[in-house]
Amino acid sequence: MEEWDEVEVPDNVKEIFVEMKNTAELMVDLAYSAVLFREKEMANEVLELEEYLDLLNYNLMVRAVLSARNIRDAERITSILQMGRSIDDITNAAADLAKMVIEEKVHPLVTEVILESEETIGRVVVSPESVLVGKSLEELDLPTNTGVWVVAIRRGKRWIFDPDDDVKILPGDIIIGRGTRTALDYLKEIARGIIKVMPNG
Amino acid sequence: MEEWDEVEVPDNVKEIFVEMKNTAELMVDLAYSAVLFREKEMANEVLELEEYLDLLNYNLMVRAVLSARNIRDAERITSILQMGRSIDDITNAAADLAKMVIEEKVHPLVTEVILESEETIGRVVVSPESVLVGKSLEELDLPTNTGVWVVAIRRGKRWIFDPDDDVKILPGDIIIGRGTRTALDYLKEIARGIIKVMPNG
Repeated sequence: MEEWDEVEVPDNVKEIFVEMKNTAELMVDLAYSAVLFREKEMANEVLELEEYLDLLNYNLMVRAVLSARNIRDAERITSILQMGRSIDDITNAAADLAKMVIEEKVHPLVTEVILESEETIGRVVVSPESVLVGKSLEELDLPTNTGVWVVAIRRGKRWIFDPDDDVKILPGDIIIGRGTRTALDYLKEIARGIIKVMPNG
Repeated sequence: MEEWDEVEVPDNVKEIFVEMKNTAELMVDLAYSAVLFREKEMANEVLELEEYLDLLNYNLMVRAVLSARNIRDAERITSILQMGRSIDDITNAAADLAKMVIEEKVHPLVTEVILESEETIGRVVVSPESVLVGKSLEELDLPTNTGVWVVAIRRGKRWIFDPDDDVKILPGDIIIGRGTRTALDYLKEIARGIIKVMPNG
């Protein structure tokens, strides 16, 4: 478990807030992926992010309260604290899912429900023949070009969670992505090397 | 306010569960849209969906508990109830956002944060020259072809929330969509009639 106390936290309310929202969305995606693939390592990452999020939320509260100068300020700042709490509720839900994975108590129905919703999670293996190979996520812009969001990449024994834009796809990478079934199937064809051009490529 | 007591609820655990998950995701999208566009009508829809979700959650609990036949069953069913509660937490967060819109207490920062996250919400006006006109959402498959999810459509004075697949786009429709900034810009060009073909069209 990392020591979040030593982690750098963004130092203004807005940046903390954006970081909280993005972290929460990542946690939900990772929690769903952990459930689908029974991946305890992913589940642990969710729990670590939960600690980071608590730290962010604490910092948000302190800084938001300090910034209030009058009653009107204070009233509106309440809406920020409220949203911080809402984000925290959402991440607690993701952490609960992660704990089920770790304790091996996931009912098969939970898996089915995640699979059957409109947007789902898929596992895509990149073959050496794929046009994806050697390109960075920035160049590929998969959300726009295929409708798939990259949640994580498995490279050998290592996980890259929430990969940065400059990460390049290598042959053998396993991409965990979120999107519609159609979008995921499309990305699979590209990853297998069956489709050789990207829409905007 | 509609009477949810008279609303039909799916009658098996799995269907209730899927309905809960989809409803929760719609509520979050609508809540964000309501905040961005200060749309009280949308915010009210979120609060109505919250009541529907409470009813679904109650039905999920009753049916899940009834289905337990032994201790092992009961343990795993707990994970279903837990997930029901998690979904309920998420929708409470969406409802809190909706209430802020109705009470006009949204801090500008909340808007900024929603706009600045990777996936955002946009408003797209459909011109009579657009290739979208006259086509159904099923034919268009916007999530796969443009990376944009349709959250709602404003048609004249009427809102269509979570439009069905058979809804056809009419000239003058205002589409509220969720996607990356690039994806939303791309859909805007199609909606204006500047781009005349769809990737898979």
